[in-house]
Parts: sequence; C-alpha cells; structure tokens
Amino acid sequence: MPSHFQLLKTDTATAARRGRLQTLHGVIETPIFMPVGTQGTVKAVTPVQLREVGAQIILGNTYHLNLRPGSELVRDMGGLHKFMGWDGPILTDSGGFQVFSLSKLRNIQDDGIAFQSHLDGAKLFLGPREVMTIQANLGSDIAMVIDECPPWPCTRDECRAAVDRSYRWAKLCKQIATDNGFLAGGHHVFAIAQGSTYDDLRREAAESLAELDFPGYAVGGVSVGEPEPEMLKQVAATTPFMPAGKPRYTMGLGTPSQILKMIGLGVDMFDCVHPTRVSRNGAAFTPDGMINLRNERYRADSSPLVEGLDNYTCRQFSRAYLRHLVMANEILASTLLTIHNLHFYLDLVAQARARIEAGDFAAWSKAWISRYEAGEASG
Amino acid sequence: MPSHFQLLKTDTATAARRGRLQTLHGVIETPIFMPVGTQGTVKAVTPVQLREVGAQIILGNTYHLNLRPGSELVRDMGGLHKFMGWDGPILTDSGGFQVFSLSKLRNIQDDGIAFQSHLDGAKLFLGPREVMTIQANLGSDIAMVIDECPPWPCTRDECRAAVDRSYRWAKLCKQIATDNGFLAGGHHVFAIAQGSTYDDLRREAAESLAELDFPGYAVGGVSVGEPEPEMLKQVAATTPFMPAGKPRYTMGLGTPSQILKMIGLGVDMFDCVHPTRVSRNGAAFTPDGMINLRNERYRADSSPLVEGLDNYTCRQFSRAYLRHLVMANEILASTLLTIHNLHFYLDLVAQARARIEAGDFAAWSKAWISRYEAGEASG
Repeated sequence: MPSHFQLLKTDTATAARRGRLQTLHGVIETPIFMPVGTQGTVKAVTPVQLREVGAQIILGNTYHLNLRPGSELVRDMGGLHKFMGWDGPILTDSGGFQVFSLSKLRNIQDDGIAFQSHLDGAKLFLGPREVMTIQANLGSDIAMVIDECPPWPCTRDECRAAVDRSYRWAKLCKQIATDNGFLAGGHHVFAIAQGSTYDDLRREAAESLAELDFPGYAVGGVSVGEPEPEMLKQVAATTPFMPAGKPRYTMGLGTPSQILKMIGLGVDMFDCVHPTRVSRNGAAFTPDGMINLRNERYRADSSPLVEGLDNYTCRQFSRAYLRHLVMANEILASTLLTIHNLHFYLDLVAQARARIEAGDFAAWSKAWISRYEAGEASG
Repeated sequence: MPSHFQLLKTDTATAARRGRLQTLHGVIETPIFMPVGTQGTVKAVTPVQLREVGAQIILGNTYHLNLRPGSELVRDMGGLHKFMGWDGPILTDSGGFQVFSLSKLRNIQDDGIAFQSHLDGAKLFLGPREVMTIQANLGSDIAMVIDECPPWPCTRDECRAAVDRSYRWAKLCKQIATDNGFLAGGHHVFAIAQGSTYDDLRREAAESLAELDFPGYAVGGVSVGEPEPEMLKQVAATTPFMPAGKPRYTMGLGTPSQILKMIGLGVDMFDCVHPTRVSRNGAAFTPDGMINLRNERYRADSSPLVEGLDNYTCRQFSRAYLRHLVMANEILASTLLTIHNLHFYLDLVAQARARIEAGDFAAWSKAWISRYEAGEASG
C-alpha cells in the first residue's frame, strides 16, 4: 500500500521538506498554510473565494462546532464538508486547546477534561472517546488527538504529567479510531507532542508517539506566550525526533516570517487565525511588513496592496478604496482584506515549495525574512 | 439619433412596460431592480457576486460618498466605477433625500440646502450646482436632480412650495449638465416629480418636468411613512403624465409584491435597501414570504432557502447552515443572504420582463402577489 505521505525532497542547507499528503478529499502539497474556519466558516469569505486564493485544506474547530451547532447536527446534515459547502480536505483540532483557553472551571481527570461552555455555562466533558466521536461526526479528513497543553512557563513536574497524560490519551484516540473504522476508512489521526521548554521531554514525547505509528504528528504547546526564539527552540527540539516519512504540523502558528523559519526547521503544515483576524481590523500583509489601512497616508493611494500579486483584491482595488471601506466599517473591507491576506500566506508557502524544489530555499527565505522584518521594524 | 430608451412592449391589461435603456456602461433591461451601494459598496458582496446574481445597474449615494471619502477623491481615483471595481452602469441619487432624513439643522434656501454632516457636524451646502458637480466627479451613468421631498402628511401649501422649488432646481440641474457637457457626453439626468398626496400637483409636477425633456423621470416623495395603498395611489397619479418614451423610476421602493404592483402601474426602475438590509438581520425572501433564520424551526432544515433557485446560496447551502451562521454572528451569513435576497429580487424582475413579453403579466403577477402575501400573513 502506498503511503499517504510522499516526501518529494528534503533541503540540504535547512531541514525544509517538500511533500504531498493524500486525504479523502484530495491531495495537499506541503509545506502548506491552512486557513482557520472556527465556526464552520473561514470568516468573511466563501468557499469559492477560498479556492480562488489557493486554499488546499482548511481547519474546523471541534470545541466551537460541538457547542454550536453541535456535531450530531452536522453529521445529520451530511458532515462538515457538505454543511459548509467546502469539498476540499478539512483538519479538525480536538477541542482540547480551547478548553484550556476559553472555558470556565475546567477539571482535568484521567479520562478527559470536565469544563463549562463559554457560551452558556453548560457542563461538558471532552476525553479521547468524545473528541474522536465528534470528529467522526464532522467527517474530518485529519482528526487531532486530545492532549494536555501546559502553560508557559510550567514546572518540569507539570510538564512531565502533561506529556504522560497526552501520551495515554493519544494511544487511546488511536485505538478508538482503529476500532470504529475511522482510520481504515482513510481518515487520518495526528498525534501531538508536548514538552514545553524541556528539550528532553520534547524528544521523549516525539519518540514515544512515533512508536504508535500515527499518520502525522504535531508540535503542540507552542505560541502560548513565550517569546519567538523560545518558540522556535521548542519546535527545533521536537521535529528531529518525528518520523521523516510523516507530515509535521505546528498548531496555531504564525506570522509570515515565523512560518518560513519553521519550514526551515522541517515543518510541513501550519494554521493560524492571524491573517483572517487582522483582516477584520483593517490590516494587510505586504513583503515589507503589515500595513494598517486606517493610516491617513493611504487616503489617496491608488496603488494595490501588493503590486503584481494575483488576487481579486490586488487586481481590482486600490489602497484608497480599501481604506475607505475600513473607515466606513463596511463588511466588504473584511472580505477583500481576508482574500488578500490569505492569498499572501498561500502564495508565500507556494513560493517556499518552489524554492525547496529549486534548491535555494535557504537564501531565498533569509532574504524574504530580512526584508519583511525590516519593514515591520520601520513601519 | 436613436433614443437611449426603447419601449419594446406595453402590456394591454396593465400599464406594465418592457424596455431597454442604453447607458455609458451598458444596456439595462427593464423593468429592473437596482441594488443599493450606499458607501461605494453594495453591503457584504463583491462586484463579482453582484454580476453573478444578475445585477445590471447599481446605486451610489451622493450624500454619503460626498461626506466620505469625498467626490474629488473618487474623481482623482478614476471615478466611482473604477474606485469600487464595478464596470456596469451606476445611478446616483442627488443626496437631497438624505439631507432631509439624516442631517441636522437643515435650512432650505432658494439655491439649495444648508445642513450639517451627520458624521461630524461639518457645515455643508447642496444645491443644483453642487449635486451636479459631485455626480460628474463620481462619473454617474444616471444622475438625479436635487429636489425637495415634503414630509407625509403635508399641507397643500407646503406641497405646492416643494413642487415649485423642485421644478426650478430640476431646470437648473439640466442647464448645468448641458453647459458642462455631462449630457452631451452620454450621461443621463433624471428629473423627480413630487406632489405628495395631491393628485393634481402630482400631475402638474410630471407634466411640467416632461416639458423640460429629461432622459428619464422619477416618482419622488413616496414611501415616506404613508400606508401602501396611499403610496400606490401617488404612483398611479404620476406615471400616466410622464412621457411614455422615457424610463420611469420610483425611488427607494419596495417589497417584492410592491415592486410587481408598481410594474403594473408602468414603472421601469426600482431601488431599495430592503433586500440588503434584511440580509444582515438573518432574513430571506421566499415565494411564500420572508422568513427569519433565527427561528428554531430551521435548526435542522436541510433544504435550500428556495428549492430550484439558481444562486450560489441556494445551490450550496442549507437553511440549517445559514441559520448556524446567523446565530454565530458570522459575516458569511450577511454575504450569503445578500446573494440570495438580491438574486430573489433580480429573478423576480426578470420573470416580470418575461411575462410582459409573453402577454400574461397581469395574471402571473396577481397569483405571485397572492401567494407571497398569504405567506407573509401566516408567517
């Protein structure tokens, strides 16, 4: 049986990889960025617009969808793909991270986490059985195991306990997905390696999970408040101990330059609300950093957001018009900026793929990051 | 020289007309509904989506665009079409109506209206010279004269004064548009007949403006608080005295059934914020009346908003999904409902055109209105 993941090329100067991941809803070329569709929609854009900007796979959030409209309803409506009108691959998180970041009165137990809904205070419980059932209801192409994400900073004992519990839960998730036919049906389940800032625990987490032979692996517990160098150090302490033949994913990251840095560390998949969130605040990415259209300097600027970038927003609209929409609080501002900002991210990873293939990823990414960060610093 | 307006057919059982209006940015098949783009965008949809739902012409609001971003800026950016990325025809109102409905401390003078901006209280003035200059800056295909819209109800003396002043201003607007080459350049200017509930003043307004030979004529001062029968009576008291060979437009109207009733009175063009506004409140039109998706009954409703209606929203999404988006306050709810509701209006006028051509408009519109209003009453 051919593997679901083909490693097409590994960079010699960095750990960057060019790969191809097969899912039930199509092939994903990696490295890839995955737009986030928290509540069954990537905010402010249609599935058609997502395709137009080059989205290959999107995220759904188990925590949110399970609270509203409920995973049984989504299942009864034909699954998440049909429900939201997106026929490409969907990755769903397990909901564990949102339990830690959003819910009230959580209580970690051996078989899961008891918590209260942030919407109405309802008492809920998520453990391996629940998250695998919910993600099966949603029909995820890639389901994530439930894990315990320790805070930053945390003590070694806290981290040790989180790594151990995450391992037990991951093993149980895989067992459930095997028993109920989820894996045999062609769906994937990815494990998540924790370990906080403890390099040896990061390695232990990655190696122990590797033995369980998951279809893919994620670095969890990064970007939870730590500075960027610490975050990159944690990723670098984890990826070398993940199986080379499986896709690697850092959850919830990052800025454009962070994504290039992590590609250089051997990461294949990324998701982040950053490009969609800043769009709703009037900001746009450029190769010289992020700009905010509320700035008076764009009032009569007839140039596009990025000259020559081939998306609807850059082809059709001036900075002056986009600024007008932002100042007038028009919904179309969010839509057009989301189109641009998602395309900027997806174009960036497409460029990274081409550079890995061409063999000059290291020099290109260094120059790209240098220009971007210089613009951010002066902007 | 061929006329800019061809009257293709006039119904025998009603006063309905099938026509074709030539503008600088293309041909408009009438009767037509014109989506409203108040601030340089039809709220929540892109120009591409407008084309997909069958929009032939859209509206821009002179009052709003002149306050923000300013008509000189729009002119400097290449005109409103280029600014907002819409290459079809645009009709702009004169801004007079918004001065009456939105601004503070207005003072009607012989040569225009002094008022304060509703945004920042700035002291402004709009008269024939100003509104024609602004609409030339915007590059409107169809500019409207400035008029005085009396309140409902008003005394005969108030109405008489408004009709007289509106006539003088209309004459001056036409003179300005002649002198500055606006009309010769192929732009149109439409006059507006006032007259409130006084049938003889309505007739006088229509006949006196007809003598000025405008490219088109509007019924103004309707839907300002009066009940529907009174509104239809005012339209019926005006249209017979407008030139048959020119397009007729009722400003700011109406519900789907009102539009069919006014087509039957010989009106060719309509605009209204109703379909775009209700979209942002979770409502959708159906042949059986308007429904609100917040209603619990749609929670697990897998059917489209309207079975067989060929728009993106009805082809791809269930009522259950749209309800979920509405309940979760997602921007996509506004976009998908606006797509549906605008298409519903544009499909309705397309059906009306076909029925006028086929000669059975009267029976069809009666049955359509009957079903729609029965649904509204029971909904």
